[in-house]
Amino acid sequence: MNRTETWFPVHEDSGYGLENLPYGIFSFGKEEKTACVRLGEHVVDLAALHSLDFFEGLELPSGVFRKENLNAFMGEARALHQAVRKRLIDLFRKNTDYRIKETAGQIMLPLSKVNLHPPVRVGDYTDFYSSEQHAYNVGCMFRDPEKALMPNWRFMPVGYHGRASTIVLSGEPVRRPLGQLQGLGIDPVLSPTKKLDFELEFAYYIGGETELGKPVEISNAHEHIFGFTLLNDWSARDIQKWEYVPLGPFLGKSFATTVSPWVSPLEALEAFRVGGEKQNPEPLAYLASSRDWNFDIELEVCLQPSGGSEERVCQTNSKYLYWDVCQQLAHHTVNGCKLNTGDLLASGTISGKERGSFGSMLEIGWNGERPYLLQNGETRVFLEDGDTVIMKGFAQKGKLKVELGELRTEILPAHE
Amino acid sequence: MNRTETWFPVHEDSGYGLENLPYGIFSFGKEEKTACVRLGEHVVDLAALHSLDFFEGLELPSGVFRKENLNAFMGEARALHQAVRKRLIDLFRKNTDYRIKETAGQIMLPLSKVNLHPPVRVGDYTDFYSSEQHAYNVGCMFRDPEKALMPNWRFMPVGYHGRASTIVLSGEPVRRPLGQLQGLGIDPVLSPTKKLDFELEFAYYIGGETELGKPVEISNAHEHIFGFTLLNDWSARDIQKWEYVPLGPFLGKSFATTVSPWVSPLEALEAFRVGGEKQNPEPLAYLASSRDWNFDIELEVCLQPSGGSEERVCQTNSKYLYWDVCQQLAHHTVNGCKLNTGDLLASGTISGKERGSFGSMLEIGWNGERPYLLQNGETRVFLEDGDTVIMKGFAQKGKLKVELGELRTEILPAHE
Repeated sequence: MNRTETWFPVHEDSGYGLENLPYGIFSFGKEEKTACVRLGEHVVDLAALHSLDFFEGLELPSGVFRKENLNAFMGEARALHQAVRKRLIDLFRKNTDYRIKETAGQIMLPLSKVNLHPPVRVGDYTDFYSSEQHAYNVGCMFRDPEKALMPNWRFMPVGYHGRASTIVLSGEPVRRPLGQLQGLGIDPVLSPTKKLDFELEFAYYIGGETELGKPVEISNAHEHIFGFTLLNDWSARDIQKWEYVPLGPFLGKSFATTVSPWVSPLEALEAFRVGGEKQNPEPLAYLASSRDWNFDIELEVCLQPSGGSEERVCQTNSKYLYWDVCQQLAHHTVNGCKLNTGDLLASGTISGKERGSFGSMLEIGWNGERPYLLQNGETRVFLEDGDTVIMKGFAQKGKLKVELGELRTEILPAHE
Repeated sequence: MNRTETWFPVHEDSGYGLENLPYGIFSFGKEEKTACVRLGEHVVDLAALHSLDFFEGLELPSGVFRKENLNAFMGEARALHQAVRKRLIDLFRKNTDYRIKETAGQIMLPLSKVNLHPPVRVGDYTDFYSSEQHAYNVGCMFRDPEKALMPNWRFMPVGYHGRASTIVLSGEPVRRPLGQLQGLGIDPVLSPTKKLDFELEFAYYIGGETELGKPVEISNAHEHIFGFTLLNDWSARDIQKWEYVPLGPFLGKSFATTVSPWVSPLEALEAFRVGGEKQNPEPLAYLASSRDWNFDIELEVCLQPSGGSEERVCQTNSKYLYWDVCQQLAHHTVNGCKLNTGDLLASGTISGKERGSFGSMLEIGWNGERPYLLQNGETRVFLEDGDTVIMKGFAQKGKLKVELGELRTEILPAHE
């Protein structure tokens, strides 16, 4: 597939051409936070475009882009989101009919000159567990390879409520958490986690609220998805192991979750939709769908030890998810649970079938049993202080490329 | 203990005298939502008091009470909260020095004339599991009476992340949720829950955010508590049972959680603080405290079947909680998890030692084994459509009485 050409200089290999146009929140100097889209290595100031009347004809509320976050815009109708996106493409395509080139100085700023802020105020954050290989690997390690998958796993997208207050942006370091670690037959101690881990995930934000008490039909579920981000669901495996029975993960997860400053709209990933694998058993009726809501997105994780160089430790693809986004959303609301604009739903760790495609150190190092040899001669079973974890995601078809951003996080030592 | 007398008519048995003054959000006709306190059967308009200069000398930001919720005020310093409360008591006590009586018509409205709204925008909602008898009862029913408490239970206040988007006010009916129910050796089916239940809980809102990455010392933990509410953590036991392994409760809880329109400030409950029971084993250092952060609050649950009369099915007391609020808060933040203004933390179901003091139908009806006989001759093991559940809480010492409000919810039938 070919890309839509633009009058604005964007490198031909860039994943931030007109097909992506992810939304974000930026500020310049001491000016107010403002909504933008990314085009190449620049941000496009949406509030400036609005005030210069480039959205003429669209029913955009005044001030909708001059906000601390994207929530006000995300809460508008889906048709308006689509109209804004279409207008942006019309404004920036080669041979545009709009007189926009002469205003480029007013509406665009290089990324290097601006600050990026959390794009969304997340109300509730939900984390699923939708990769079969990941669930199988964890089941093998902690339970029994014969019964690695729990009895409920093939009947529903199992998930849990995560912590919204500790969602942080790529670039912000993460501090090694303290927690209770279980001794061997002795009492637990308070200690920095010895099993700090990343989890590679694919996530999406809700646009527009659903009605309390009313399930969302799976055939309409996609209409509630505003856009996508990569997500790193930081985990402390030893804290989690001791605390999680019977109420699930809590402090082993709630110290940090990293997201991208960019939200790629659903429309940007339309070209990369693929069918999911056939499910066995057949899902219940409320989860039965066309099964064409998986996405072919290349994902990878790199590790950079302190003073060392970046190397890839995982390469996988989001298309391997067993439960798709529409199934997750239909399941989440079947009990009448209300979704609000800005809610964040994540896939759970995405793992392929071989070690090189496992999406967590827990699996790569098989809970400490199989140390991973780095190029600098060090080994890793879990993360060390000073390590930087980098996650990348992109979709590509011919010359058409859409980047899902990059998450980059350095690990700080625990508080004393 | 005696109550502080007020010039405003408040019934001598009222739990809404000057010692309580719970905060809420009201509106009158089509006017904007505004913060208030409750005095007897009236609301006191805090924005009107502010504009009439009755808070002179206090550094209150302008407009802090003319808001959709209490969060702006709750995010101010604790010293300011205390100064506002002191001023309110000074304004309304008998023989006040302020010329307020002549303005009563401008600042007070009868409860019957106003609408009450959710008082707090909840960021994250956390539910603990801190009643030993409740954890024991559940363990006996679903696991083994010999090992009813999980190994971690006496070492930490076990908890999980709940769902903030479905927190609703007393008075709003709750619809019976749909969900997957496990058959006996056969595949699950989608069905309205057959085990709809209440959970009687005591909960508190956070005022002022904590620092990401930094644990809160237990000795300072109480400084982060703004105020208290009763809470009904609605549960669908059959949905929960099938879904909860290994990631904990999800759709079995997330359809609704009921809170009061009133938030009683920490200071209102100071007189009712009591010591907790000695803990064995001794808690780890970060959880070791003076142990005087339990509260002597009488709690009860009444059930009113459709067309029948209200009768009490549970009478207990929050002082029986094993883990106190400061221990919960210190544990929650030990991994660096950030608490934000408006976050809600709940105790978990509070149960005493006998059937008459169990805080859920699961325990009262012993998971269906011991039907509860109502006065009208019907029996209950779980809740039926048309039942109304009423929760009440109050603290009393001599003539001093503080009501923690009342939660009243009718059960609606499931969607077809």
